[in-house]
Amino acid sequence: MKISLLLTGNELMSGDTVDSNSAYIAQSLKDLSLVPYIKKVVGDDLPLLVSSIQELSLISDVLIINGGLGPTVDDLTAVALSQAIDSPITRNADAYAKLDEWATRRGFVMTESNLKQTDLPGVCEIIDNPNGSAVGFRCIANDCLIMCTPGVPSELKPMVENHLLPLIRDHGNIEAKSHITRLRLFGITESGLQDTVNEVFPDWPAEVELGFRVQMPVIEVKFATVGDEYMALNHQWVEKFEARFRDYVIGRNSTRLSQALNDALRDNNLVLTTAESCTGGQIAAAITSEAGSSSVFEAGYVVYSNRIKHQSLGVSESLLAEHGAVSEAVVIAMAEGAMEKSGADMAVSISGIAGPDGGSEEKPVGTVWMAWGKTGEITARKFFLPMGRLGFQRTATALAMDLVRREVLGLPTDIDYFSELKKKR
Amino acid sequence: MKISLLLTGNELMSGDTVDSNSAYIAQSLKDLSLVPYIKKVVGDDLPLLVSSIQELSLISDVLIINGGLGPTVDDLTAVALSQAIDSPITRNADAYAKLDEWATRRGFVMTESNLKQTDLPGVCEIIDNPNGSAVGFRCIANDCLIMCTPGVPSELKPMVENHLLPLIRDHGNIEAKSHITRLRLFGITESGLQDTVNEVFPDWPAEVELGFRVQMPVIEVKFATVGDEYMALNHQWVEKFEARFRDYVIGRNSTRLSQALNDALRDNNLVLTTAESCTGGQIAAAITSEAGSSSVFEAGYVVYSNRIKHQSLGVSESLLAEHGAVSEAVVIAMAEGAMEKSGADMAVSISGIAGPDGGSEEKPVGTVWMAWGKTGEITARKFFLPMGRLGFQRTATALAMDLVRREVLGLPTDIDYFSELKKKR
Repeated sequence: MKISLLLTGNELMSGDTVDSNSAYIAQSLKDLSLVPYIKKVVGDDLPLLVSSIQELSLISDVLIINGGLGPTVDDLTAVALSQAIDSPITRNADAYAKLDEWATRRGFVMTESNLKQTDLPGVCEIIDNPNGSAVGFRCIANDCLIMCTPGVPSELKPMVENHLLPLIRDHGNIEAKSHITRLRLFGITESGLQDTVNEVFPDWPAEVELGFRVQMPVIEVKFATVGDEYMALNHQWVEKFEARFRDYVIGRNSTRLSQALNDALRDNNLVLTTAESCTGGQIAAAITSEAGSSSVFEAGYVVYSNRIKHQSLGVSESLLAEHGAVSEAVVIAMAEGAMEKSGADMAVSISGIAGPDGGSEEKPVGTVWMAWGKTGEITARKFFLPMGRLGFQRTATALAMDLVRREVLGLPTDIDYFSELKKKR
Repeated sequence: MKISLLLTGNELMSGDTVDSNSAYIAQSLKDLSLVPYIKKVVGDDLPLLVSSIQELSLISDVLIINGGLGPTVDDLTAVALSQAIDSPITRNADAYAKLDEWATRRGFVMTESNLKQTDLPGVCEIIDNPNGSAVGFRCIANDCLIMCTPGVPSELKPMVENHLLPLIRDHGNIEAKSHITRLRLFGITESGLQDTVNEVFPDWPAEVELGFRVQMPVIEVKFATVGDEYMALNHQWVEKFEARFRDYVIGRNSTRLSQALNDALRDNNLVLTTAESCTGGQIAAAITSEAGSSSVFEAGYVVYSNRIKHQSLGVSESLLAEHGAVSEAVVIAMAEGAMEKSGADMAVSISGIAGPDGGSEEKPVGTVWMAWGKTGEITARKFFLPMGRLGFQRTATALAMDLVRREVLGLPTDIDYFSELKKKR
């Protein structure tokens, strides 16, 4: 089955907007084991739109058109489709009813430019759009299922899930239903994951398609099977995978690392405090980006200078002088001090050299010490993250959050992050 | 002049990679006042690549091909171009020399798959790639300048600036040179900016092309003129624009808000401290994301609970009880407390209701108080930012940084942020 995408909009041609809609559509098509054949992007140019619709509908079984459904003069999709398939524009009663309801619900008066959105090629049926004023519409021409969709991502996404995929499945007689499981992992690279799967599971069944997607700092792993008869196989291999990679799995679906940490703390009735030097507040900011974080977080200390490490958290001046700020002794003292000051159950502390300046031969830029745990039970680890200031700060923040999550859940904290997984378990 | 883009790669079709290269190329083409005509994206599919090159080269004056230059079997651009323009593959001596030098410099031994990158259509000349092993290459066929470029963004970008734009200018006899000035603004919307320009500068000269690009939270405004004779006009209208919008301009080129704040503090020998409740450390994190921030920032306090506001910063319990944590009195006390604790010259403090819970009729979700200034000279302002938890935190952080920047620079801090600029100056 050949699927083509036609995207329209001057903002896509000028580069003012990066096209993420087509990636979203393509990712969704994976649920039907389909990959688009051609993507074409053109501006708001009527003759070019007409010829592109004709060309792509002739070579494709399905053509998804995205954009150009709005109320303004540069929204040309309906007119272009009308000319391309030779079906004159008429006022579509279903589209009118939807728009009328949409306007009434919001107390809007329909304008002429709104009404334009109900003028569609006569052969078209509408596709519901619960999130906007412009309905989608579809028809079959040149044996091709043509579907016109809105460019606004929040309007497009539910339409893809609820309407496009079922319509494509029907059009292509794709009977079998996909089963998808998604796991989110932290601390392993995409290639490390692939290599280990190849090595540990030489008998991985072809029916369970594995997909990896990097969503920094986590990796999403997707397990897809097609057909109800393979559902049990899907679950069985997800379990094997989870057992092998349990050190890295932070959750299912769209779990964020900060969310997994919040959940772990909440489930264990623990309040965490942070003592940050080189990350300058990023760990605290990540934790409090989650709704409801006030039950697990009360106080955070950004102690950027040695003077403040001493004054705010009671890190002794002799310790700082003897070991330097980036040292095991100092991060342990920072963690203990933060717990004492705040009364929190646990602390995480961090001190490192983000660069570009401040490195030495002994402690080059990228060196970072972290400590975490409860009073009197602090563990510390050193990492080397030579990846530029922003990459250093982001990665150090993610590692610190993961280490606390592991500690709370009783998982090992001495794992080889981002290694190629040489050791077997 | 018609310019088309052909992007190739299975990862673009599957949606695993969002195509940002074409937006980068399109933005760069603005320097020549050009907008791409067609973008086409196809997978690693030889017949489809060949027909696409033929089709696009026939209708375009310039065809930029992106991707497929690597050493693996799915990198098909050279072979596809060879077939499309009927120019057999030969080993290109210049490409070989470049690769040899590249490998020698890194102590690599060239492999067969490396050597594949030096096999190009006979008519092609190379385009230098200082950042990678794959050279670009170009030829003229069907009167069309065809240029093949690497898919890796760090390799593409210098090639666009240093080679593609000059080659396109030569091919199109574009003699005149563009002059570009870029200003970065914070605190005004794109439409507010456009409306005000229309109203205040009805005589804005057509020769000075204005472009707006939103790069949250700032807006970049670009002033482009073509030809040396308009350079003075460019500078003159940039000055008029700057004078009118001086309340919003944070700097030129790629200035970040956090960078502008760091610069303002450093230039005035001031050390800032932060006292954050609802932003949970984001202000401190933004300031310390800039290299060299240790000269302007030593200490930050994340005081998420009332208990910690009292204990860490000495905000009195009666004040908290009487006014609530989200109040003018409390943010002023937080700022004073943070300065007293840290010894900093200035403080900024923030307390608000990020949501989704915690709102009331009197103080709905989105309400936020900020205070800033020196000891005894604190100013406070209230904002209402009902834009979801993440949008609230990001916008509040940006506003807080901008208010401190303005205070330090002696600019007004009572401006109507994001208003439609109803008042004239």
